[in-house]
Amino acid sequence: MGSIRLGIIGLGVVGCGVANLLRERGSALATRFNASFTITRAAVKDVKKSRDAEVDPSIITADPFDVVNDPNVDIVIEVMGGENPALELLLTAAKNGKSIVTANKRLLAIHGEKIYRAVEDAGVELGFEAAVAGAVPVIGAIKTGFAANRIEAIHGIINGTSNYILSRMTLEGKSYADALKEAQALGYAEADPTFDVEGIDTAHKIAVLASLGFETPINFGSIYTEGITRLTPEDIGMAREFGYRIKLLAVAKRVGDSLDARVHPAMILASHPMANVNGALNAVEIKGDFAGVNMLVGPGAGAGPTASAVMADVLDIAGRMVHGVAGKRSPMITPASKRVPIRIRPVDETRSQYYLRFSVPDRPGVMAALSGALGESKISIASMIQRGRKEGGAPVSVVMMTHVAVEADLRRALAKIEGTKICAAPTMVIRIEGGEE
Amino acid sequence: MGSIRLGIIGLGVVGCGVANLLRERGSALATRFNASFTITRAAVKDVKKSRDAEVDPSIITADPFDVVNDPNVDIVIEVMGGENPALELLLTAAKNGKSIVTANKRLLAIHGEKIYRAVEDAGVELGFEAAVAGAVPVIGAIKTGFAANRIEAIHGIINGTSNYILSRMTLEGKSYADALKEAQALGYAEADPTFDVEGIDTAHKIAVLASLGFETPINFGSIYTEGITRLTPEDIGMAREFGYRIKLLAVAKRVGDSLDARVHPAMILASHPMANVNGALNAVEIKGDFAGVNMLVGPGAGAGPTASAVMADVLDIAGRMVHGVAGKRSPMITPASKRVPIRIRPVDETRSQYYLRFSVPDRPGVMAALSGALGESKISIASMIQRGRKEGGAPVSVVMMTHVAVEADLRRALAKIEGTKICAAPTMVIRIEGGEE
Repeated sequence: MGSIRLGIIGLGVVGCGVANLLRERGSALATRFNASFTITRAAVKDVKKSRDAEVDPSIITADPFDVVNDPNVDIVIEVMGGENPALELLLTAAKNGKSIVTANKRLLAIHGEKIYRAVEDAGVELGFEAAVAGAVPVIGAIKTGFAANRIEAIHGIINGTSNYILSRMTLEGKSYADALKEAQALGYAEADPTFDVEGIDTAHKIAVLASLGFETPINFGSIYTEGITRLTPEDIGMAREFGYRIKLLAVAKRVGDSLDARVHPAMILASHPMANVNGALNAVEIKGDFAGVNMLVGPGAGAGPTASAVMADVLDIAGRMVHGVAGKRSPMITPASKRVPIRIRPVDETRSQYYLRFSVPDRPGVMAALSGALGESKISIASMIQRGRKEGGAPVSVVMMTHVAVEADLRRALAKIEGTKICAAPTMVIRIEGGEE
Repeated sequence: MGSIRLGIIGLGVVGCGVANLLRERGSALATRFNASFTITRAAVKDVKKSRDAEVDPSIITADPFDVVNDPNVDIVIEVMGGENPALELLLTAAKNGKSIVTANKRLLAIHGEKIYRAVEDAGVELGFEAAVAGAVPVIGAIKTGFAANRIEAIHGIINGTSNYILSRMTLEGKSYADALKEAQALGYAEADPTFDVEGIDTAHKIAVLASLGFETPINFGSIYTEGITRLTPEDIGMAREFGYRIKLLAVAKRVGDSLDARVHPAMILASHPMANVNGALNAVEIKGDFAGVNMLVGPGAGAGPTASAVMADVLDIAGRMVHGVAGKRSPMITPASKRVPIRIRPVDETRSQYYLRFSVPDRPGVMAALSGALGESKISIASMIQRGRKEGGAPVSVVMMTHVAVEADLRRALAKIEGTKICAAPTMVIRIEGGEE
């Protein structure tokens, strides 16, 4: 019986999940592969900390470079996260001829090209199924299931924290602050939730998916990113009234020769399958020219699901090792060195329907000012709601749904309205996905 | 540049879809694989019939054995369907050293073991992603994405025809007959819809999924199968009232050392993601011990989606050919020769909640007879609705939802009620999925 030797960097939730999966499923996998899977080295930040998995203390080190330099490691599993020293670790692992499995979406989003080329140059394998949507096999689907397709569009609800918060706001009428507190209490949100609620984590993931699906390098900085922190129960309620749900949506789709790549709260039709993906679930919708629209849904995080994804990659690589072809270029995807850059369309060029909520005084002339400014910029209004006259002239909400408009035109109109100083608060703008041309 | 030579058996919807996909995507795929994909032989039933794809007439034959015996064919794509001569064709192809891609779920459900062993013995590849749920990469997900898991359960809405009919009945209140007619007019149902509406096609597909997911030979005949033809708008409406939707559901799950494998209309909670999979869409939910519950949704049929799935397999096999490992046993799945039979639990042992609709005269004593018989068999009633007193003593519907009960006990009670001859029509029984222990 052969042996596949694993080195793990990070024994947090995911690392311990992998160790526990191996303890429970290791012997069944060994029978199938005629090879044992053994963790031969593990790096942790704090050697003394207690952990959720039993790992032989003699293999534990505080220096992650011990793992990537260990001659007794075949596959490096990087689940420490962050950019540094993860980047150098992976580049070193590749140089040392080790295959790599990583769950690090941030690293791949920002330094993906460097890593993809390094593993190609070194002739090693790279797996990153765990970087997006936990156990949901979305990377595998793009690489294999839809391999014969030209991918046309990818839409994702790929941040469990934000989706949990929005679901609580939608289903229970909670405020953003209360929903966030609940998410933090349940461990769905971190003490500093910035990466999740500001859409940054979602942008990392869509960058990874888009790069793979559209076979192109992605400049992470050019993905327009907007979070969910400004959404109010009023917006959630209005969306419902118009037949929509609000989701933090990642969008990557071909528009002519460009790529439309953005992350922001979006209204999607209540009857759309993604509208009903609630709680901490993730969903990714992939549209292929032949496969049509397919959706994959599942737990986007957690020890078990992420360990399942990490081990899917490990087994895939182990399968190639068994056949002696590990590191040989797979024709299933275009190599990084041959990928062609695609222009990412600036958000100003986005064509979309918009939900606008103005906070204005309830007095004559206001409506004329709003509609005048919109009309001048060719923004046409599809429907409008004004409700609730407030005591003492307090500002009221005027909600408009526009027809399809160009974002730059809308921005111009909103700047003009801003200039009139009639608005008591910044205007809320939410894009309606599926309503654009 | 190398060459991957394809022989197609059947140039109907799927076969033409493959030809069209190759015409559109062939050059991009050739670049990636450094090999051209060419159809070198194609067998059709009627050589003179006009087709939806341009295929060189000189490669067309009326004898499918020409394809599997052609030395210029590397991969045989079988999309003719049916058991015979498909079985002999595939066995011959394997013996001739050709890899096989098939969309034939019926063949795999009934003769799978023979075929799996034949391809293993011959050292050729077999792909059948297209056999279940069209483009939805559910076979790939089980083989690769969830490879590290012990699969606990598979649930599927995997017959587009039935799902289309049930969706029309649910969303528009149509009768079964009217919805079937509409499905036939739109091409979603065949002139003889038996295989689809009686659950047989669904049973074929769950047999294929269960065999793969639970690594066991499946005796197709032991899968309890019930169709949708007896469902009425009243049942659909009652389901809605209790917060459920009715779907034709395929179930395969581990229960102790047995496998629970069955196909029947089932009530699932309206809030469950599968409840909202409507129209001709398919959905497969896979539960792994580490991955948790994941769902894949997409078009279950059609030229494009099925061609996408066929070509996914072709490319996967071509990738192994390029690396010189085609036909080498993949450790990702347990070989057929090592699979261990699992007992399929008879439907009598099913534990479930039940929806019962009795058609009875509206007179004293009836309710006592019904509840007495149920009580004697330890069937306890969770809720009950009787509605609509009819003119002239016409029978009324009494609807009951039971607590979890054993199917054999329920059958005994129903036989007893049947014996009293108080029912004016056979009692409708619908299982509630998710309500069992």
